[in-house]
Amino acid sequence: MVDWFWRKRRKAPAFRLRSREETQPAARIDLAEFAPQPVEYLARAAYVELSHFEDLSRAVAIAPSIVAKEMLAGAAGAAVDRHRALVALLEARVDDVGVEMDRYRGVVDRFQRLTQGQDWYEATLTCYLAGGFLGDLFLALADALPRELAPAAREIFATNADETFVALFTAAMADNPRLPSRLALWGRRILGDALLVARDVLSLNAAQANAAEEARVEPAFSELVAQHTRRMDALGLSA
Amino acid sequence: MVDWFWRKRRKAPAFRLRSREETQPAARIDLAEFAPQPVEYLARAAYVELSHFEDLSRAVAIAPSIVAKEMLAGAAGAAVDRHRALVALLEARVDDVGVEMDRYRGVVDRFQRLTQGQDWYEATLTCYLAGGFLGDLFLALADALPRELAPAAREIFATNADETFVALFTAAMADNPRLPSRLALWGRRILGDALLVARDVLSLNAAQANAAEEARVEPAFSELVAQHTRRMDALGLSA
Repeated sequence: MVDWFWRKRRKAPAFRLRSREETQPAARIDLAEFAPQPVEYLARAAYVELSHFEDLSRAVAIAPSIVAKEMLAGAAGAAVDRHRALVALLEARVDDVGVEMDRYRGVVDRFQRLTQGQDWYEATLTCYLAGGFLGDLFLALADALPRELAPAAREIFATNADETFVALFTAAMADNPRLPSRLALWGRRILGDALLVARDVLSLNAAQANAAEEARVEPAFSELVAQHTRRMDALGLSA
Repeated sequence: MVDWFWRKRRKAPAFRLRSREETQPAARIDLAEFAPQPVEYLARAAYVELSHFEDLSRAVAIAPSIVAKEMLAGAAGAAVDRHRALVALLEARVDDVGVEMDRYRGVVDRFQRLTQGQDWYEATLTCYLAGGFLGDLFLALADALPRELAPAAREIFATNADETFVALFTAAMADNPRLPSRLALWGRRILGDALLVARDVLSLNAAQANAAEEARVEPAFSELVAQHTRRMDALGLSA
């Protein structure tokens, strides 16, 4: 049991949800043309959050200190809250939320399998980067939802746990000089896999998407990648 | 992937927190004489809830269906909420919540190790029974806290997720005729280990506690066991 973390700081940095508005640039991502219909949006987003919760839980289980455990547990609780809010919206629209989520789980299960990581650092970086990237994606897609649904969806994805992760990694990397280069590599891997999930959500099948579609969706992907790069920068990692 | 669960019922039974008042008997547990001081109470309870969250997360990860996953995820979210509420109360009283929780984790870590279970059914029964038993214990101990703290502590432990678990097991056992006898055994094992945790919380060391102390604490233990028996009954299991 490596207790590096709470020995460093007397007070645990509190888990805090931060508004994306505070950190996000003015650039808007316009994905309306590629946005899924409401039921598909809700089912995909709900399953992504359930999977994100599982990843966070795994990170809690292997966390090197109680403080790290409880910061991650806070993030896991927030993921459950998002999942349940999305399921509540879905329940009002379909008979069987399980069947709906099942339709879209393939690509998410694959992503989860590929991004488990070798240890707590990698698993936690996955939570930070994938949670951020997919949260950004669903926030952008919320704009394309019908008027009665869009504000609720935007509110669900209005906050993120970036600050918690930055505090966790700053402490961890101070004690592990060789960690940054390993995590920089791992971060690139996560981005690649997250982009495949995004393409699936947007129904952009690599084999079929034509050049015109690719050109239209490109600015949105660029912005998602830019936000990923900012997350890496916040840890001092090259993206 | 065994999808027995959501195929059975079109609508998922919603996760719901239920007031203990609704189900609990009039009998009050009086543990004032044995109750820990406020900081110890909060640190022990906060760590128990963190551990309970970990157990629930593990049950989510291996759940046989999406519906089971998301019901358990709801219970996990509630455990995180309790943990964080207790940590907030603790932070107002001590410098380092990690150090405080660390003092009392031994018996809880041991309990967690011994009650993992062989499969999802056993792991989930642990969550149901141990979460219920220890929640009852801390609710009873809340009455002995100072006036400025007792109501907050009582509120944290005022609800439980029993209904969710009963729904989960009712569906599971209908499909598994040999499951009840195995789970009945497992339930007895959990009770035995949970009683050891309770003795530690009450600072009743088996080797030292004298006969007079044992006699005074006996009614409280009887009531905790009676509530455990009711939980087993609700699943149709003999306690």
